[in-house]
Amino acid sequence: MAVPIYQRLAGLLEDMIQSRSLRPGDRMPSVRQFGSQQRVSVPTALRAYAALEMRGLIEGRPKSGFYVRARRADFAPDTARSSTAARAAAVGNPDPIESLLADHANSQLVPLGAALPSACLLPGIKLTRTMAAIGRRLGPHSVDYDVAPGNEVLRRELARRSLEWGCALKADDFLITVGTTEAVSLALRATCKPGDAVVIESPTYFGLASILRELQLRALPVPVNAADGVDLDALEDTLRKTRVAASVLVPNFHNPIGFVMPDERKQQLVRMCVERGVPIIEDDTYGDLQHEGARPRCLKAFDLEDAVILCGSFSKKLAPGYRVGYIAAGKWQSQVRALKQASTLTGALLPALTIAEFLKNGGYDRYLRSVRRAYHHQVARMKEAVVENFPERIGLSRPTGGYLLWCELPGKVDAVELFRQARDAGISIAPGPLFSPTGDFRNFIRINCGFPWDAQIGRAVGVLGKLVRKLNDRSR
Amino acid sequence: MAVPIYQRLAGLLEDMIQSRSLRPGDRMPSVRQFGSQQRVSVPTALRAYAALEMRGLIEGRPKSGFYVRARRADFAPDTARSSTAARAAAVGNPDPIESLLADHANSQLVPLGAALPSACLLPGIKLTRTMAAIGRRLGPHSVDYDVAPGNEVLRRELARRSLEWGCALKADDFLITVGTTEAVSLALRATCKPGDAVVIESPTYFGLASILRELQLRALPVPVNAADGVDLDALEDTLRKTRVAASVLVPNFHNPIGFVMPDERKQQLVRMCVERGVPIIEDDTYGDLQHEGARPRCLKAFDLEDAVILCGSFSKKLAPGYRVGYIAAGKWQSQVRALKQASTLTGALLPALTIAEFLKNGGYDRYLRSVRRAYHHQVARMKEAVVENFPERIGLSRPTGGYLLWCELPGKVDAVELFRQARDAGISIAPGPLFSPTGDFRNFIRINCGFPWDAQIGRAVGVLGKLVRKLNDRSR
Repeated sequence: MAVPIYQRLAGLLEDMIQSRSLRPGDRMPSVRQFGSQQRVSVPTALRAYAALEMRGLIEGRPKSGFYVRARRADFAPDTARSSTAARAAAVGNPDPIESLLADHANSQLVPLGAALPSACLLPGIKLTRTMAAIGRRLGPHSVDYDVAPGNEVLRRELARRSLEWGCALKADDFLITVGTTEAVSLALRATCKPGDAVVIESPTYFGLASILRELQLRALPVPVNAADGVDLDALEDTLRKTRVAASVLVPNFHNPIGFVMPDERKQQLVRMCVERGVPIIEDDTYGDLQHEGARPRCLKAFDLEDAVILCGSFSKKLAPGYRVGYIAAGKWQSQVRALKQASTLTGALLPALTIAEFLKNGGYDRYLRSVRRAYHHQVARMKEAVVENFPERIGLSRPTGGYLLWCELPGKVDAVELFRQARDAGISIAPGPLFSPTGDFRNFIRINCGFPWDAQIGRAVGVLGKLVRKLNDRSR
Repeated sequence: MAVPIYQRLAGLLEDMIQSRSLRPGDRMPSVRQFGSQQRVSVPTALRAYAALEMRGLIEGRPKSGFYVRARRADFAPDTARSSTAARAAAVGNPDPIESLLADHANSQLVPLGAALPSACLLPGIKLTRTMAAIGRRLGPHSVDYDVAPGNEVLRRELARRSLEWGCALKADDFLITVGTTEAVSLALRATCKPGDAVVIESPTYFGLASILRELQLRALPVPVNAADGVDLDALEDTLRKTRVAASVLVPNFHNPIGFVMPDERKQQLVRMCVERGVPIIEDDTYGDLQHEGARPRCLKAFDLEDAVILCGSFSKKLAPGYRVGYIAAGKWQSQVRALKQASTLTGALLPALTIAEFLKNGGYDRYLRSVRRAYHHQVARMKEAVVENFPERIGLSRPTGGYLLWCELPGKVDAVELFRQARDAGISIAPGPLFSPTGDFRNFIRINCGFPWDAQIGRAVGVLGKLVRKLNDRSR
């Protein structure tokens, strides 16, 4: 710690320039300003600047002050840096959600990894226009807090829609959340304590594993049938053998498989959990996205005992970046509300109002009609292409809604290795072990069909097919 | 459970009408639609509708379907209902944050309770315009996810600003959060486990008590001096006697008192906590709102050992409803990031980008210059009025920034009783015991000076003064 102050300051500024917090061409604070910010004398501040100038990082301009210099091309080149960083993120990054979401944002990769639709299918432009109009209407009040339990207009629209889900919830039954993630996390915090065991489906979406891990809950995976959901005999067995604090289930357009549990099995499931006193946390994220016919009912529709906590959001189907979700927590409502206030207080007002307006004016229903057709088509097209390009012995899920495809690869193909090779070839996919807290499904992948079919995706499936064949041959 | 199905359905619909999820004039789903939603036969659905019609709640219109009827004025009148509801919320509501925030949204009350500025002082209209422009520029991508650690433009602007705070943080040091609430909550989850003891200031803002309670942490209140912050001898004593997992402190424009800790005391404080290995969670929410002179430095500026977790947000000073905050968690960064992803995944994109743009284009600095003057004036004017209207023996804090005033009332005036009487008289204030987990400060109130002085506020202070005198006389 015996470094002279000016050197420490120069070091800090150099860090900011290297990390591009201060960028080429930026004007530095004046020496006097910087000195006063850092509570050092003007001469000390000047010495720090002089040191940076010596290092070629900033330059003084007469009567104008100091500026960050453009870097020479041979001096810590940006491209080398960023490609190293990208590689490190791909291999070393421990958090798959983060990596897949980041990959999705990376337009260099074919987006078959993260479960997200193409922005071109989402009504972003329309929503922006709606948000701007609402903002103008609210004037100075557009920055107001949205007090708990969250925007009433939105809650009223959700209540009206709950009829379609087979429920008849009231506006007051809902609490607005920051996406399904917050809803599920709050539901688990309300029903469990650290160390408790929670039933999940196997496979299930990988965000859930992170939530359980961070809440220090133990996952009890129960197998699912690709056709009709969680295996009720296995569930019964688990409930008999283990003290279970809660269950988290995705009965409608399950992620990653895409099944819908038939109504009589939903009813059985609810009855089974009610009998054992195990609360059900229902994740209905994809519920609105049936490819055709009627919208499936929620487990909540069969819940006469207030044992189901219903969670959902508009992230995966309307506006990912708006972060608007909801929870109907039944008898846990007051706990969930207190937890919500202590973790995020309240959500953002304008995104909530925008979605409420879109629901109210019929925009959402019109939009759903068009994306349902699009996803139906995209999933079908992807299945054809996979069958065409992959080796014969593969299994494919039969989703009746949503935009996800679950694919069993032949023999001993290692999906994580495939993930790596695909990424090197510019293609993002989601490897099976991510969907299991115990690393099962080593020869499965989930394919995102949220993008309209095009030549690039076609080529990507071709490349994947070749990689799969090569891995399959090698492993023999 | 032996109620006939049609009666159960009629009951659900009646609830929706009573709760105004279905409102007078709304068209009901067609009988066929409703039957299929609820998976009942058309005759059963029709029986449910007929029952509602009998009760006078809906009416059939020839060739058009069923509509919710306008209620007769003498039938469950709205006004009686809502005033009862308001009274219940005022008295029975156990959560003071909720009540105060709700009161703030209630334009019938003079807003001296919640710590919030007047919307007319916030640049809501300008921000809406900026948001609309950003949304248009992003086009369909305006609904994209903002991947962790949160928007880079905003993090770069925060890094640049950190020089003013006496720090030199880099963009990568920051994680964007849903307000300070999420930042502090994540910091506590990263550093503590349930049952741990956490040092807080006494008094401190009441949101903190909720956060600690919901995380099952024990609050260890340490007294503060109104002039220069937490009592370091008392703190030393507490740290010596008790195993402390973390401390949460508000060194700049403390809520409710408004003091700034002098630099040498900040330095001492950091050293003291570092020596004992106690992480400091610094809440810098009001840091930018000095009434004049230089922006105070953060504790983080004196942190050579990476022991301070810096939290802040734009809620209290720019856009409450945008819910944009940040955390610089130092060596706890990866834990905090994992916790954040498992609790809310990521924040809303457009609000973050809008604030980033406002910081970048100089709008925020211009705005700060004007509100600093406004708050200075408003606090001064409020002090004058309080001195003029309240009995002689009162104490008033001397805030040098922000818009909060902490007021010690004479003798045995009960602030909670004053809160009730004031609310009945149409005035919201924050009673002292809210600021202490042990219910201290029974004769203190916090007064919000976030609104421009006007005749209504003047009259409210007059009424408060009378109520205080009456309570003081009565208690003799």
